[in-house]
Amino acid sequence: MPILQWASEYRRDQATSDLVAAMIVTVMLIPQSLAYAVLAGLPAQVGLYASILPLVAYTIFGTSQTLSVGPMAVTSLMTAAALTPIADPGTATYLTGALILALLSGVMLTLMGVFRLGFLANFLSHPVISGFMTASAIIIIASQLKHILGVEEYGQNLLVMGRSLLDHLDNTNPESLAIGIGTLAFLWLARSHLESWLVRWGLSPAWSRVLSKTAPLIAVILSILAGWGLNLDAAGVRLVGDIPSGLPSLVVPDFGGPLWGELGTSALLISIVGFVGSVSAGQTLAAKRRQRIDPNQELIGLGTANLASGLSGGMPVTAGLSRSVVNFDAGAKTQAAGAYAAVGIALATLFLTPAIAWLPRATLASTIIIAVVTLIDLKTLRTTWRYSKSDFGAMLATILLTLVHSVEAGIIAGVALSIGLFLYRTSRPHCAVVGRVPGTEHFRNVLRYDVELCPRVTFLRVDESLYFANARFLEETVLDLVNRESELRDLVLMCPAVNLIDASALESLETINERLRDAGVRLHLSEIKGPVMDRLKETELLAHLGGTVFLSTFDAWQTLTGHRQALDKTA
Amino acid sequence: MPILQWASEYRRDQATSDLVAAMIVTVMLIPQSLAYAVLAGLPAQVGLYASILPLVAYTIFGTSQTLSVGPMAVTSLMTAAALTPIADPGTATYLTGALILALLSGVMLTLMGVFRLGFLANFLSHPVISGFMTASAIIIIASQLKHILGVEEYGQNLLVMGRSLLDHLDNTNPESLAIGIGTLAFLWLARSHLESWLVRWGLSPAWSRVLSKTAPLIAVILSILAGWGLNLDAAGVRLVGDIPSGLPSLVVPDFGGPLWGELGTSALLISIVGFVGSVSAGQTLAAKRRQRIDPNQELIGLGTANLASGLSGGMPVTAGLSRSVVNFDAGAKTQAAGAYAAVGIALATLFLTPAIAWLPRATLASTIIIAVVTLIDLKTLRTTWRYSKSDFGAMLATILLTLVHSVEAGIIAGVALSIGLFLYRTSRPHCAVVGRVPGTEHFRNVLRYDVELCPRVTFLRVDESLYFANARFLEETVLDLVNRESELRDLVLMCPAVNLIDASALESLETINERLRDAGVRLHLSEIKGPVMDRLKETELLAHLGGTVFLSTFDAWQTLTGHRQALDKTA
Repeated sequence: MPILQWASEYRRDQATSDLVAAMIVTVMLIPQSLAYAVLAGLPAQVGLYASILPLVAYTIFGTSQTLSVGPMAVTSLMTAAALTPIADPGTATYLTGALILALLSGVMLTLMGVFRLGFLANFLSHPVISGFMTASAIIIIASQLKHILGVEEYGQNLLVMGRSLLDHLDNTNPESLAIGIGTLAFLWLARSHLESWLVRWGLSPAWSRVLSKTAPLIAVILSILAGWGLNLDAAGVRLVGDIPSGLPSLVVPDFGGPLWGELGTSALLISIVGFVGSVSAGQTLAAKRRQRIDPNQELIGLGTANLASGLSGGMPVTAGLSRSVVNFDAGAKTQAAGAYAAVGIALATLFLTPAIAWLPRATLASTIIIAVVTLIDLKTLRTTWRYSKSDFGAMLATILLTLVHSVEAGIIAGVALSIGLFLYRTSRPHCAVVGRVPGTEHFRNVLRYDVELCPRVTFLRVDESLYFANARFLEETVLDLVNRESELRDLVLMCPAVNLIDASALESLETINERLRDAGVRLHLSEIKGPVMDRLKETELLAHLGGTVFLSTFDAWQTLTGHRQALDKTA
Repeated sequence: MPILQWASEYRRDQATSDLVAAMIVTVMLIPQSLAYAVLAGLPAQVGLYASILPLVAYTIFGTSQTLSVGPMAVTSLMTAAALTPIADPGTATYLTGALILALLSGVMLTLMGVFRLGFLANFLSHPVISGFMTASAIIIIASQLKHILGVEEYGQNLLVMGRSLLDHLDNTNPESLAIGIGTLAFLWLARSHLESWLVRWGLSPAWSRVLSKTAPLIAVILSILAGWGLNLDAAGVRLVGDIPSGLPSLVVPDFGGPLWGELGTSALLISIVGFVGSVSAGQTLAAKRRQRIDPNQELIGLGTANLASGLSGGMPVTAGLSRSVVNFDAGAKTQAAGAYAAVGIALATLFLTPAIAWLPRATLASTIIIAVVTLIDLKTLRTTWRYSKSDFGAMLATILLTLVHSVEAGIIAGVALSIGLFLYRTSRPHCAVVGRVPGTEHFRNVLRYDVELCPRVTFLRVDESLYFANARFLEETVLDLVNRESELRDLVLMCPAVNLIDASALESLETINERLRDAGVRLHLSEIKGPVMDRLKETELLAHLGGTVFLSTFDAWQTLTGHRQALDKTA
């Protein structure tokens, strides 16, 4: 348990720093918790519940000193996407579904950590994550427009949402719209200028940066005052409404109902997306302090946080970069900062809920929009397009499917496409016939360089590991080559870039060896890497090989073209 | 259309050879067609229908001179596995399902051919195919025991079948058992000894080999005589029973029913398994005559054959190695042999059906068992275990899941596992810190060789393409290395085995470059391959790179360790 390592030498100065950071984070977390719960289609207090015990669990099991755990935008969107087909928001089934998602996600993450399966997160390539985040942000923004306009709107993807929004546009509530646009403008100004204003007013740059993050809470307080003072409820502005005060009770949902099975895939996707975002945020922040986090222990930290959330009336949680940066900048020194923030949220849950009832939903919608706008990453779209059309393809497919179908379809298609593209690329490896650079021991592509050749000996370099997806391609390439060159007597397969030969490729090499033997051509191998050779030694391929295994291609050249004899004679 | 190429120069001597081969194949195809239709849970005549028009279609569109198309054991098993959950054998829905499977498979294969997607078949690794064939053969044998024992038995996997068989064992029909065991013994003797006996009686080896393949037909004729003469029907022996005589009528199943959607996945799996078996048989036989087949045109050949089958009351078809070898050995010279065999089967359908009614099912079961026993490939199981534990793992999972769950689960798990294992292997690439072999331009692993080192410069060689699955691993490896060596000023990343850098890895390299720069370490690259460098040139990585890109590692060594200056001074 990571807590045992740092708690034993926990010092007073660290405690002070952690307390200050916790206060700042609490201030930031209150509006975020409410907003992301509403985004997930859940009652606002669920967000608060998900920001108490999960933070304590992460303090005990997490390895990052500065990650801040709680509900996050994209996982909340995914929660809504998973639950909406199963139940209507507001029903008991929907609430139970959120608990089950958190519990399932907790179990999955913890197991992945225990079995050291953190590498699974690597299957989400950068372009796919970036594309998914961009598309999710667009969907989230679209989903919040209804609160700002004060209209009804339904749908899981952009097409349905757009149509539904247009249908209801006539019912736009002007007061909601005013609050929404006002909050948006305020938050936008705060983000772009507040920090520099505070610096100009004499605050230190670090504190200016941290304090500028309190703008959402200020917006919330002002909106609550407006909601209460102007009696906006009567004007048709939708408020958060009465929410139960008091701490969440510990509940275990009925185990084994049909929901558990139906939500499995969604929970897995939420877990992986949450973990990827969390671990990359953790690594970025740790590197700034020359520290390291342990990804497998992070899985356990996030897993127990989700278990705690599922057991205390919460929803799936993860750590987000933006909030963690605030924690970092505010000076958090250890994981204890998270536990202190949990106390802050618990106090808010106990005492502030009557005020929160007066909060207009339009305000929450605006804080969400401002928060997720930064996820829209057009730069990566551009650089990926320039660098690799196939990576761009996977990215674009992720974005489009997320937008027009669903978040789950988008991410699954992205993963499948990037794996498929990698397999496709490696299934048609770059192969080059090479010749000797005159007077040297080097061999280069005959198409790129002016090199020496020998008609009876061909040197073929394969620039890829040999495995099932390219085994047949290798067979075809070699046999085509032999069919073209009738004078050929020796073929040297150069393997300096072959990092692996799997069982399928081994069988193909045996087939190639046999067919070449039938054609009167000897198959030689050269420059086989140590680890690859270690395994080949025990196979029948080497016993049946028509030719020889040469350590260096130059060695093969000397032996097969007769240069060695000539050299030996002159010596 | 391949037929246009060979038909224009079709000679009389070729026609004679093709006709003789067609007669032999017809004799072999009659019992096989009946048996595999019954294996698929279909009426026996469906097998005959599937051996008429499909052969003509392949003659027109196929590129192999010797492949023999028709119902095959494993695809028949897969047909049964796909249809049994949807309908009871013998119902009209079941029959329609078989037609739809053939049509879907035909459309998929043809489209894959037109869009040149033949490479998709490469995703089935050799161990997975071999394991799948072994497990399928065991299931097929288990499924045929009921016919030999003359009892009822149900189930899609070994567990259910075994239990069901034990329950009904009391009802064993002694006459069925006698016929089954007699046929098994006869076919086993014929396979192991008939050829050598025929040679001893003075026949040529080639003809002995071909004629020994007529044993199943002899068994069928003898059993029909027994069934009719001894009135086995009355003794409780299950016979094939009355089947309609006459050629199949062309029918198009109702398009767009729910069956089409439900059978999509099954049709895809049948298509791919059928194609893999067919194309590897075709390549093996073509190589013996120094010819080549075109895999993408083969897809069209098989696809149109399945379309023809689906339109003429048939079932999914493919080409099998054993039957094609007979066609090859019997001297087939062109695809016309297939069309002639189709005429043979058509004649059999017209005139022999009354006799086939008397055929005991136990005889068909025995011919199936003898045919599929050769698919059980324990040698590959053994060699794969020795060569690669992870390939063996994928193979074993395929076998076990096929046996205890279902054929579809087995093959899907096999493909997923082999892809997953490849990604896992490449996600943790072999990395080696290397040093200079004294007095040479070569660099070798410090752990394996006694090499020169320089404390301020580290040379790290990565033996793998850099892509999303190992991008994070690379970051961790490099940063761990830098953390360990405090004196380090220059890190040279050697890329002679890096065949690809995808967008994720590019981003990781940028991250590594930044973090190293923060730590006061310059990142250099060396030995980047031509195609990789071509792409890197246009990226920001090279512009931001803390160090230099060296063509050779020796160049980097000279420059960074100061040897060049020393050399320059002495010069």
